[in-house]
Amino acid sequence: MAKPLNVALVGPGFMGRAHSNAWMSVNKFFDLTREVVMHTVCGRQAGPTKKFARRWGWQQSTTNLSKVLADPAIDLVDVATPNHLHAEQALAALRAGKHVACEKPLAGTLDEAGAMRQAAALARRQKLKTFVWFNYRRCPAVAFAHKLVGSGKLGRIYHIRATYLQDWGGPQTPLSWRFDAAQAGSGAHGDLGAHIVDLTRFITGEEFTEITGAIETTFVTHRPRAGSRSKAARRGRSTVDDATIFLARFRSGTVGSFEATRMATGEKNRNAIEINGEKGAIKFDFERMNELLWWDNTLESPLQGWSRILCTNPGDHPYADAYWPPGHALGYEHGFVSQAADIIMAIAGRKPPVPLPDFEDAYRTQRVLHAVLVSAGKKRAVSLTEIGDR
Amino acid sequence: MAKPLNVALVGPGFMGRAHSNAWMSVNKFFDLTREVVMHTVCGRQAGPTKKFARRWGWQQSTTNLSKVLADPAIDLVDVATPNHLHAEQALAALRAGKHVACEKPLAGTLDEAGAMRQAAALARRQKLKTFVWFNYRRCPAVAFAHKLVGSGKLGRIYHIRATYLQDWGGPQTPLSWRFDAAQAGSGAHGDLGAHIVDLTRFITGEEFTEITGAIETTFVTHRPRAGSRSKAARRGRSTVDDATIFLARFRSGTVGSFEATRMATGEKNRNAIEINGEKGAIKFDFERMNELLWWDNTLESPLQGWSRILCTNPGDHPYADAYWPPGHALGYEHGFVSQAADIIMAIAGRKPPVPLPDFEDAYRTQRVLHAVLVSAGKKRAVSLTEIGDR
Amino acid sequence: MAKPLNVALVGPGFMGRAHSNAWMSVNKFFDLTREVVMHTVCGRQAGPTKKFARRWGWQQSTTNLSKVLADPAIDLVDVATPNHLHAEQALAALRAGKHVACEKPLAGTLDEAGAMRQAAALARRQKLKTFVWFNYRRCPAVAFAHKLVGSGKLGRIYHIRATYLQDWGGPQTPLSWRFDAAQAGSGAHGDLGAHIVDLTRFITGEEFTEITGAIETTFVTHRPRAGSRSKAARRGRSTVDDATIFLARFRSGTVGSFEATRMATGEKNRNAIEINGEKGAIKFDFERMNELLWWDNTLESPLQGWSRILCTNPGDHPYADAYWPPGHALGYEHGFVSQAADIIMAIAGRKPPVPLPDFEDAYRTQRVLHAVLVSAGKKRAVSLTEIGDR
Amino acid sequence: MAKPLNVALVGPGFMGRAHSNAWMSVNKFFDLTREVVMHTVCGRQAGPTKKFARRWGWQQSTTNLSKVLADPAIDLVDVATPNHLHAEQALAALRAGKHVACEKPLAGTLDEAGAMRQAAALARRQKLKTFVWFNYRRCPAVAFAHKLVGSGKLGRIYHIRATYLQDWGGPQTPLSWRFDAAQAGSGAHGDLGAHIVDLTRFITGEEFTEITGAIETTFVTHRPRAGSRSKAARRGRSTVDDATIFLARFRSGTVGSFEATRMATGEKNRNAIEINGEKGAIKFDFERMNELLWWDNTLESPLQGWSRILCTNPGDHPYADAYWPPGHALGYEHGFVSQAADIIMAIAGRKPPVPLPDFEDAYRTQRVLHAVLVSAGKKRAVSLTEIGDR
Repeated sequence: MAKPLNVALVGPGFMGRAHSNAWMSVNKFFDLTREVVMHTVCGRQAGPTKKFARRWGWQQSTTNLSKVLADPAIDLVDVATPNHLHAEQALAALRAGKHVACEKPLAGTLDEAGAMRQAAALARRQKLKTFVWFNYRRCPAVAFAHKLVGSGKLGRIYHIRATYLQDWGGPQTPLSWRFDAAQAGSGAHGDLGAHIVDLTRFITGEEFTEITGAIETTFVTHRPRAGSRSKAARRGRSTVDDATIFLARFRSGTVGSFEATRMATGEKNRNAIEINGEKGAIKFDFERMNELLWWDNTLESPLQGWSRILCTNPGDHPYADAYWPPGHALGYEHGFVSQAADIIMAIAGRKPPVPLPDFEDAYRTQRVLHAVLVSAGKKRAVSLTEIGDR
Repeated sequence: MAKPLNVALVGPGFMGRAHSNAWMSVNKFFDLTREVVMHTVCGRQAGPTKKFARRWGWQQSTTNLSKVLADPAIDLVDVATPNHLHAEQALAALRAGKHVACEKPLAGTLDEAGAMRQAAALARRQKLKTFVWFNYRRCPAVAFAHKLVGSGKLGRIYHIRATYLQDWGGPQTPLSWRFDAAQAGSGAHGDLGAHIVDLTRFITGEEFTEITGAIETTFVTHRPRAGSRSKAARRGRSTVDDATIFLARFRSGTVGSFEATRMATGEKNRNAIEINGEKGAIKFDFERMNELLWWDNTLESPLQGWSRILCTNPGDHPYADAYWPPGHALGYEHGFVSQAADIIMAIAGRKPPVPLPDFEDAYRTQRVLHAVLVSAGKKRAVSLTEIGDR
Repeated sequence: MAKPLNVALVGPGFMGRAHSNAWMSVNKFFDLTREVVMHTVCGRQAGPTKKFARRWGWQQSTTNLSKVLADPAIDLVDVATPNHLHAEQALAALRAGKHVACEKPLAGTLDEAGAMRQAAALARRQKLKTFVWFNYRRCPAVAFAHKLVGSGKLGRIYHIRATYLQDWGGPQTPLSWRFDAAQAGSGAHGDLGAHIVDLTRFITGEEFTEITGAIETTFVTHRPRAGSRSKAARRGRSTVDDATIFLARFRSGTVGSFEATRMATGEKNRNAIEINGEKGAIKFDFERMNELLWWDNTLESPLQGWSRILCTNPGDHPYADAYWPPGHALGYEHGFVSQAADIIMAIAGRKPPVPLPDFEDAYRTQRVLHAVLVSAGKKRAVSLTEIGDR
Repeated sequence: MAKPLNVALVGPGFMGRAHSNAWMSVNKFFDLTREVVMHTVCGRQAGPTKKFARRWGWQQSTTNLSKVLADPAIDLVDVATPNHLHAEQALAALRAGKHVACEKPLAGTLDEAGAMRQAAALARRQKLKTFVWFNYRRCPAVAFAHKLVGSGKLGRIYHIRATYLQDWGGPQTPLSWRFDAAQAGSGAHGDLGAHIVDLTRFITGEEFTEITGAIETTFVTHRPRAGSRSKAARRGRSTVDDATIFLARFRSGTVGSFEATRMATGEKNRNAIEINGEKGAIKFDFERMNELLWWDNTLESPLQGWSRILCTNPGDHPYADAYWPPGHALGYEHGFVSQAADIIMAIAGRKPPVPLPDFEDAYRTQRVLHAVLVSAGKKRAVSLTEIGDR
């Protein structure tokens, strides 16, 4: 009989829903040594939190985080709140002796991220583990790409091209907290750019050394307010970037371009990366998340081509064993289920199939995001050394 | 508070797993007036059934189907056993006054299917409902295709091309019950062909009137036995079709070609259909299950093209509301979750977004499958009238 | 200095234009031992033929075929007239001691095709060669597919799926000679079906042994007459098939499905074939004519995928040497240019990169087309033996 | 009878071959008021030039450009020599009173390009016209994209993403003049980057105002010398960029990213652009040159998708009338044939279907390329105003 792992979720919103589904499903699909108990969900408003708990099967609901952290039964605190709350809540949870899994990006600012990273380093001495929900790492095609690169199949890497393109931010989209820098930190950059910086670091193992140039832009400066009456109040100011694009250099000489936007008409969720190496190349696009395109530059020349690998074969592709037969697609949510499984493995001292991002790792991603903003502001190249460490 | 709906699952195998996941998830994703209680799972072997129950959260496990059927608490019996057991179990469940959801194909033979259809007709008088798990109908892209055709967007239909291609049946694949006609009924034809016949009927609303020609073929007549020792016993005879292909005419003059195979090297799960109408055309391939290709023949000519619609927009595409934002893909299992939701709606007397197949409907699909075998055997065209009714 | 090869073209219509371009271009792109002289073009109407000659650079124009055939200077007669004229003209040209290149399909009827094949056999003794313009064989991706299969890369072939889908034949398309069986022989079947039967035989090297079932259908029986005034005369009867589909068996046990249609809304020129073998599989679609999809079933399993080979590498892919660098696409007309080169090579006694179809070869294709019509008419399987030989 | 247009070609190399084919074919495919006479080809070496003339049908060959320019019969001089010769030859031809068509990029340096632009402005007074062979503008899909944007179908443009990716420049590729800055000017930047800068300006009509950041990089600094014997001499230094990538802002607020490389393993000729506007979006990739992807953001939402338009319909798509029926693909060379037709139209005072680039236009493209190099060198944003005019 598997030993229970008591989980508390903080933040019963959109991401909390994806996390709840993961905690609910993980022991059904994976054979694990710990069995998740969906112990407590903690939200700001009692009513909705209680309703959320009932729906998703959390045993208790509360609005009091301190009480949750004080409960010795809780093993893991899962932080799924808005970005500006991550640091405070995660630090408190670590202090309370809990493992912490935190939504991405790690924090609202680099300073906060630095504090979280340091707290995580201390907590490691007490065998506490930290995790960040960069869920796309556990898309089988992405994990497989990581393994291909790691096994040397691409050789020296020349080029990286990464984009995270969405299109829901057109001029008719009303003002919301997502367009308020005070609440959201940034726009497309923190929300989408964080994913492609992590994806790049994860798949290639390369570290950014310079942001050579960057554009942060707001196409729509004034947006309609939902439900406003007076003419003056009808439109409000958006204070975040609609799109941020940048160029970067990496330690090994690799160069890359990166783009995050909410205004790429026609692109619903193109979280995509292309990597060209000396011996091979890959392409991935989350809109076709079960596929990896692979070019083997060592094959006999007439047979070289972009090979569309359907990464759904149990035995062949990471995580595929846990789910369905070949060709039976996985969806968005499975990244969370698989990450939940890996978190449980890591807590049990086992090594997951591909590396899990911890606070240290996510801090490095945040540092890149920060350097991009500096470069965009100064209109010049900025080295990561110049940014320094927090 | 939603009223409970007590479900009993018969058959804790591969399909039972997909069904269990559906019953577990359905009230999380859908707002429904009944709440599923995973009451009992019934299997042949006590140990594995118990283990299955514990894993998936069934409250009880048993090997005694009669007891399950005698339990007045059970509202719905979900039959996920091998094909040759469907008729007996479904008939018993209907007699016991239960709603029945049965895996596809409806039965092992047309006679059995006929008996099930008649029993379902009687049971309707007692407000009992029957359902068949043609799960692909609830793939949002497929449901959307059904709606497009139903709204007249394609106009008169000229052509249907449907294939269900897999490739796991190569000569090295060992003999199993799936290659034994006595146990499996048929090979690719019943397993895969059933889906594309249903898909065709569902999307187009057209009925088959003639099977004009058919080929049923077994490429690999002798297969290795797993674990056999003596030389003589090393290979055994496969008695099912590896592939069945046929041509058909429909009431309206539409013509179609159909192919089901387990030996289409390179095709993992190409459950695909193409439909060409006077005003528009569509293509679907389950390997890219979130996409529908759509051609609007009424657009201004220079702008006509195959449009790849990502059927993941809440508000726009069937079932998308229940899950994630645009561009966040669904997977294989969501067809089952959505069908579970529709079954609950139907039992509650509400109309699901697109029609649910009942025994009558699935019988008509089975009749087509039967006519194909007759045509293949007689090497000539066979009309559906000639087949008659059971 | 290359020796001249005097060519006479019969038929200055649409196909004559493609042939003229080929004869004009062939010595520019290919290094050959013979240099084409565009000697004479022969048409029905003096004016347009003269104009055609001037435009395309034919030295002379005439309406008198006998005179052309009597001219000892002419080495090769290129027949690009409507199908029902092929036999008479080709037979006369062979009798006159000319090499003959004839447009496809070989003839309007199987009897005519039989006569042409016999005449070609006799002519071979006088070192006269015959050729048929199945131009798609010289699409580099198709020629490469032929070589892959020939080198054993696919192993035993299980499945063939071939379609030639166009969509210009909707109900608004006016009556023309193409819809008159007396002039056109057949509709989609002879026009498009001929290509996919040849493609199948060419790529696989397999021969059809049985047409198991066939549907020949006319969706639009009455079509508008262009420019008619009286109400009664406004619509006329179409006497050809809009679509013909069939199933076939091959000598080796391979099975296949075939479809030719002018009413596949959205498909402009989908001359496509898929072949699944034990060791590999290929897909080709002329709408993406520079690409071949290739599945290598002998690769390590996790890396298997559909590989999109851009068949444009000089040195790697047939005919690519003659034209442009990698990734610089060829178009429709290059099949004719390359076939012209191969015809010249063959006349000079050299072996072209892939086999050229002669009258014997094209006769066998015609025999298959004939068997399909018999099967469609009798609504039963028809073996090629039953058809016999002409 | 069309009046002759006497053309002299300077440079019988690779591009000269593509130009010769265009001059040979243009009057066959297009109805024009002038008929090309392939008068003279001028090269550096008498033998090969003569051989080239004979092969391609140039009436004369010479090594003396002055004599060609002095010949009053010549109407148009077509410059297809290496970049560093363009300015001198084009200026001489203009002085001699000839129309000039020059290969891209306009010149080896911005100063030279400035001189050419000024000479062209003067020559315009004498009714002399200049042209630059940015041949991709005449790919029907690209010309159609230009028309879509021009007609307002995209609305305000937010994003441009353009790449020209090739992969022939790996470490094994031997040193040649292409890797010598003195001869080639630059590497990927001038060769490939020039095309995507022109494509962007042509399709969108937008002008670059700032290069925000740029990376110019040489991955392979030392390359093998072909045929060298001594160990020391075996490798030589490459002095050009293997790849250049940059970010840009445009007058209207549009932002873009651009990448030209010879080391994108797996990409043969991905000359591609994506444009996201408020009302619509397009994608083009020259590897599938007959297709334009189009997103109509004004369609009813459930039907929105990326529409693959096969730009081969006579009557619908630019230039398609001149060639073959729908779905019969064009190739690389047709861009040259169509540009030749438009040059003839322009000389005859008629307006071509889409704008032809002249020296002024190509100068503006060169100015952008120059600004990129300045930005890469200074590691900061550079405005086009800062570059000034030549």
